[in-house]
Amino acid sequence: MVVKKPEFHFPPLLRKLGRGGPAVTIPKDAGLIIGYTGIGKTSRVLEFGSGSGFMTAQFANIVSQVVSYEKRDEFLKLASDNIKKAGFDNVVFKHRDVLSGIDENDASFDLVFCDIAEADSMAEPAHKALKKGGYLAAHCLHVEQAKALHLAALKHLSEVFTIEGIVREFEVREFGFRPAHFGLMHTAYLVFARK
Amino acid sequence: MVVKKPEFHFPPLLRKLGRGGPAVTIPKDAGLIIGYTGIGKTSRVLEFGSGSGFMTAQFANIVSQVVSYEKRDEFLKLASDNIKKAGFDNVVFKHRDVLSGIDENDASFDLVFCDIAEADSMAEPAHKALKKGGYLAAHCLHVEQAKALHLAALKHLSEVFTIEGIVREFEVREFGFRPAHFGLMHTAYLVFARK
Amino acid sequence: MVVKKPEFHFPPLLRKLGRGGPAVTIPKDAGLIIGYTGIGKTSRVLEFGSGSGFMTAQFANIVSQVVSYEKRDEFLKLASDNIKKAGFDNVVFKHRDVLSGIDENDASFDLVFCDIAEADSMAEPAHKALKKGGYLAAHCLHVEQAKALHLAALKHLSEVFTIEGIVREFEVREFGFRPAHFGLMHTAYLVFARK
Amino acid sequence: MVVKKPEFHFPPLLRKLGRGGPAVTIPKDAGLIIGYTGIGKTSRVLEFGSGSGFMTAQFANIVSQVVSYEKRDEFLKLASDNIKKAGFDNVVFKHRDVLSGIDENDASFDLVFCDIAEADSMAEPAHKALKKGGYLAAHCLHVEQAKALHLAALKHLSEVFTIEGIVREFEVREFGFRPAHFGLMHTAYLVFARK
Repeated sequence: MVVKKPEFHFPPLLRKLGRGGPAVTIPKDAGLIIGYTGIGKTSRVLEFGSGSGFMTAQFANIVSQVVSYEKRDEFLKLASDNIKKAGFDNVVFKHRDVLSGIDENDASFDLVFCDIAEADSMAEPAHKALKKGGYLAAHCLHVEQAKALHLAALKHLSEVFTIEGIVREFEVREFGFRPAHFGLMHTAYLVFARK
Repeated sequence: MVVKKPEFHFPPLLRKLGRGGPAVTIPKDAGLIIGYTGIGKTSRVLEFGSGSGFMTAQFANIVSQVVSYEKRDEFLKLASDNIKKAGFDNVVFKHRDVLSGIDENDASFDLVFCDIAEADSMAEPAHKALKKGGYLAAHCLHVEQAKALHLAALKHLSEVFTIEGIVREFEVREFGFRPAHFGLMHTAYLVFARK
Repeated sequence: MVVKKPEFHFPPLLRKLGRGGPAVTIPKDAGLIIGYTGIGKTSRVLEFGSGSGFMTAQFANIVSQVVSYEKRDEFLKLASDNIKKAGFDNVVFKHRDVLSGIDENDASFDLVFCDIAEADSMAEPAHKALKKGGYLAAHCLHVEQAKALHLAALKHLSEVFTIEGIVREFEVREFGFRPAHFGLMHTAYLVFARK
Repeated sequence: MVVKKPEFHFPPLLRKLGRGGPAVTIPKDAGLIIGYTGIGKTSRVLEFGSGSGFMTAQFANIVSQVVSYEKRDEFLKLASDNIKKAGFDNVVFKHRDVLSGIDENDASFDLVFCDIAEADSMAEPAHKALKKGGYLAAHCLHVEQAKALHLAALKHLSEVFTIEGIVREFEVREFGFRPAHFGLMHTAYLVFARK
C-alpha cells in the first residue's frame, strides 16, 4: 500500500523550499503554533533550531522579525537558502548551539519557538528572552521530550499545556463521504507555556 | 462529569472578545486555515459571515486587510465591537447577505474565508474574488455542508481538500503522561480549494 | 512512502482466511461490535452480507450459532470456504438477497449484524429477528449509509448510536515513544441500535 | 459544560455491575482485546488484577474459564460480587499479589490479561502461563507503564505492539451529521505480545 503525503500538507509557500534531512514543521503544526500563541505582523520570534527553515519561513511570512539559531553548518545553509528562495528579508540567522547561551536576554520576543532535542534546557533561556505575556512553543518528536519540557516549563513559566494535532483528510464523492483510509497519523507533540 | 474547554483554546487575543451566540472559529481551526493557505502580512482576506468576529480578529492580527460581510444586525455589531476591542483598524465590514452578491469580483484577494450555512453557493463568487493561486477556505459545521461545498468547489476551483483537525491535550505528571480523559472532540470540517 | 497494514490487524484466526475482494471487518471494528453488544458463547447471531466471511468467523469463534445471508455466488463460496478453513461448524449460510426477505422473524437472535450497502432497509427486518434487548450492529462504509441507517433505526429500535473506532499504533523505543507516523486512518462507521 | 459518558459505553452486561473505585475496562478497550487476541468460547484466560471485575465479566461472557488474581480485599469482594450478579460460574478468583508469584506456569492459557501498575514485571510470568501462540494483553493507564511493558515484552515474547483505541460518537440528524463536540478522549494504552 503506497501512501503519499497529500500535497495539501505543503502549501505554495513551502513547495519551493529544499528539504535536506531534518524533520520539517508542516502547516498542520505550524498553524497550531501560530493560532495558539496569537503571533501577528508586529511580533518578534526567536527560534532555537532552524532545521530546514520550514518553520522559519512560515514565521517570516507572518511576523515582523525572526532571529533563528542553528548549530549545524549544513542545516544553517539549507535554512538560509530556503529563506532566500522564499524571498524573506526579515530573518537573522545565528550559527551557534543555543545550549551554549544566547544573546537575547532582554525580554523582547513575543514567541520563542524551540525545535531541538534538548528542549527542556531552554525553558529558562526562553523566559529571559520573552516579553511578559509571550509564549514558548516547542515541536517535540517524542513523549519523552515533550514531558521533560512540560515539567521544566512548569518551573519557569505559566499556562503550560501539551497537545497533539491530528489532521484527517476526507474523500468526498457524490455518494460517499468518509475519511481517507490511510494517511499521516502523527508528526509531533507541541508544548506551550506563557511568561 | 464536568468538562471545561481548556483555557488554551482561547489565547490572549481572543480572551477580551465578547461572545454573542454564533459558533466561533477557535485557533485549533483558525491555525489550520492560516497554515494551509499560507496567508501572511501582505495578504488580503475576504470573509463571508463575520459571525462573532473571532476569525476576523485572527485574520486582522496577521494580514494586511480584511473585508468582512455579515447579514445579521446583531452579529455585525458584535463582530465590529470585537474588532474595536482587539484594537485592529484594518477591517472593513459590509452589512449584506453575500448570497445577494458581493462587490469584490476583481481577483484581488489571497483568501476567501466562508463561514455561512450555504457555503456551496459561494464557490463561484470566491473564484471571482480570488487572485490566481489564492485559496478558498470554509468552516463547515456538518458533513452535509462540507460535502456540498467540496463538490461545488470541484467545478470552479482546483486542489480541493476537506479535513478535520483534532487537538488532544495531554496530562503530564512526573510519572504519568497520557491524553486528558475528556475534552473537545470536534468543532468543524474545513474545506479548502485553490484558484 | 509505503505503508503496510500492520500484521496485528490480522490475528491468527484471520491469517489463514482467503481474501477475495469485499471489504473485510477487521478486529478493530469486530471487537467494538462484540464489546458494545455484549454477545457471548450462548448468543445467536444473524448476519446480512457474509462478504468474505471474516466477520462471520469472528462471530463463530465466540457465539453459539451464526446464520449468514449472502446474495453473491462468489462471496458465498469465499465465506463458506473460509469458515471451513477456520474449522467452525456453527455457521449456516443462506444464498439469498436479504432485501427480498428473510426467514428469521421469530425474535430469536441476540445480534443482527448488517454489512450491506442498503443497511437502512434492514432496520425493520432486524427488529423482527431480534430478541427483546438484542442489538442491531452495522458496518457502514460512508457517512451516507451510516446516516440512513441511523435515522431508520430511530423508527424501529432504541438506544441508537453511531461511532467510529480509530486505532493508533505506537512506536516504542528506549528513548522515543510516539504514534507511528503513517497508518490506517479509517475503516468504517458502526451503527448500533437495541430492541 | 457537563459531559456524560454516553450510556452506550456500558452495555447491558455491565449495567448491573457495581463500581467501587478502580478504573474499569470498558467495551471500547475490552472489544479490542478480544478482537486482537482472537479469544473465543474454548479459550482459557488468566487475569492479573481483577479490579472491579468489569473485564473479568466480559471475558467470562465469552470464554471457557477465567482465573483472576487480585491482591486487595475490597477489589476482590467487588469483583466476585459482580461476577455473581452477572451470573457467571466460570471464574476462579485467587486472593494474592501476582508479584509474589502465580500457580499457573503450565503453558495452558490462551490469554493473559494484565491490569496492574507493575505490568512490566509480568511479561516473564505471562510467558510461562501462555500456550504457544497465546497472547499477553495489558491495560496501561500511562505512557510510562505501556513503554515499560512493551520493552519487557520484547525480551520474553514476540509480535509486540502497543495501541490506543479512540471511539468517536456522532450526532445524526436529518440535516447534520457530525462528531459529538465533547466526549471521552482517552481511556488507556493497550500493549499486546504473543508467545
